Amino acid sequence: MLKKIDHIGIAVKNIDEALSLYKTLGITPYHFEEVESQKVKTAFIKVGESNIELLEPTSPDSPIAKFIEKKGEGIHHIAYLVDDVKSCLENLKEKGFKLIDEEPKAGAHGKLIAFVHPKSTNGVLMELCEHAKKH
Amino acid sequence: MLKKIDHIGIAVKNIDEALSLYKTLGITPYHFEEVESQKVKTAFIKVGESNIELLEPTSPDSPIAKFIEKKGEGIHHIAYLVDDVKSCLENLKEKGFKLIDEEPKAGAHGKLIAFVHPKSTNGVLMELCEHAKKH
Repeated sequence: MLKKIDHIGIAVKNIDEALSLYKTLGITPYHFEEVESQKVKTAFIKVGESNIELLEPTSPDSPIAKFIEKKGEGIHHIAYLVDDVKSCLENLKEKGFKLIDEEPKAGAHGKLIAFVHPKSTNGVLMELCEHAKKH
Repeated sequence: MLKKIDHIGIAVKNIDEALSLYKTLGITPYHFEEVESQKVKTAFIKVGESNIELLEPTSPDSPIAKFIEKKGEGIHHIAYLVDDVKSCLENLKEKGFKLIDEEPKAGAHGKLIAFVHPKSTNGVLMELCEHAKKH
């Protein structure tokens, strides 16, 4: 079950410029991180129980650079928190939805994540994520 | 200040087909409504403190039909709950952000709403909304 919107990823050309909008609306980022494997810089902004994740490419061959080149700046993905990514993927597959990840993979902060293909989600790249299990 | 993501509006060709995704993920809509002025049918799905609002055009000259024609199905807008739409608009205007609505206008359920132009928000059509005041 979808428990909440975990975060919305927004592709931007320049994080500092993009942040001026959110700062004007009274909120500031709580975390910055560069993800080398994805060739992006990120800024995280908390809004209620969700987060806005600004994504700025650090190289022209970053997936985010290609997204901006093709579609312009805008929403790149929506991530929903679920209890069990694996069972969600099984349910979706059984119903014929197209998946990008057939199995959950490791994401940031020890999360398990998987992407559902935009062709199956009305044009919205959907990420499912599950918190790291505490032992 | 942005208090939470109130809702995400997603433009779809067919609400019934779009709902099968969310039903497979364990959530069902709690409200359906046709908005004649906008020529759309809507379905509302609760996810945590936020809502997903599916928008299906009821006529080829609906703004949502035009959006789908131009960009394909996908996210149409993100609405944030704020305390005071009017003061947000004043702050944004002062900093040079482009507004669609210079003044708050009446939205559904007695809310006050206003849209900020995608040119000022990294390609994301942003709605600010304020709950109806209780007297």
